Amino acid sequence: MNEITWSKKEKAVTRQAFENAYKKECTELTNEIREMANQANEPDDIWRLHDFITEKRRQIEDKYDYRYSILILVFARLMKEGWIEVDDLEGLNEDKIAKIMDLAKM
Amino acid sequence: MNEITWSKKEKAVTRQAFENAYKKECTELTNEIREMANQANEPDDIWRLHDFITEKRRQIEDKYDYRYSILILVFARLMKEGWIEVDDLEGLNEDKIAKIMDLAKM
Repeated sequence: MNEITWSKKEKAVTRQAFENAYKKECTELTNEIREMANQANEPDDIWRLHDFITEKRRQIEDKYDYRYSILILVFARLMKEGWIEVDDLEGLNEDKIAKIMDLAKM
Repeated sequence: MNEITWSKKEKAVTRQAFENAYKKECTELTNEIREMANQANEPDDIWRLHDFITEKRRQIEDKYDYRYSILILVFARLMKEGWIEVDDLEGLNEDKIAKIMDLAKM
């Protein structure tokens, strides 16, 4: 995928979509943490919450990798998981959008 | 400290005091986690919360070490930090209580 080039306009679109997805996913995670924290009754509930955040943090750090060489794959994953929509990609070359959508269906 | 012996009655007292201290500290931690979770606004607030729990968990795992050979030291620490009171030690030999209280003041 190294041969794919991104125009200045496209880079602005991807940066924005990437940041929005990250915030959206972190907001959902915050809500889940709040719910678990508010329902915690026993020490083990805290350790379960900690294990949960540890795993989510690992996944998020792994997922949000903003390198243009792999951005099509990253975006396909974000779309598959519902963190970005087709509308967020408006301004990208049609081929790139098609690739992202195709991969997101896999 | 290996030479210290604990009667059956004393073991019941220490076990209860130990478990109460653990629950008390975990309850306070749960309250702190709830407050941080409910005030979290940005992704970095979640990662700060995660780092906070990681450190607390490490400290608690290290602190709550129920081995009779080191229990005087463990209890002195718990008393110093306010997780056990003198009343919780009622039923222990006077010498043990004095040792715990002396060490707790250090």
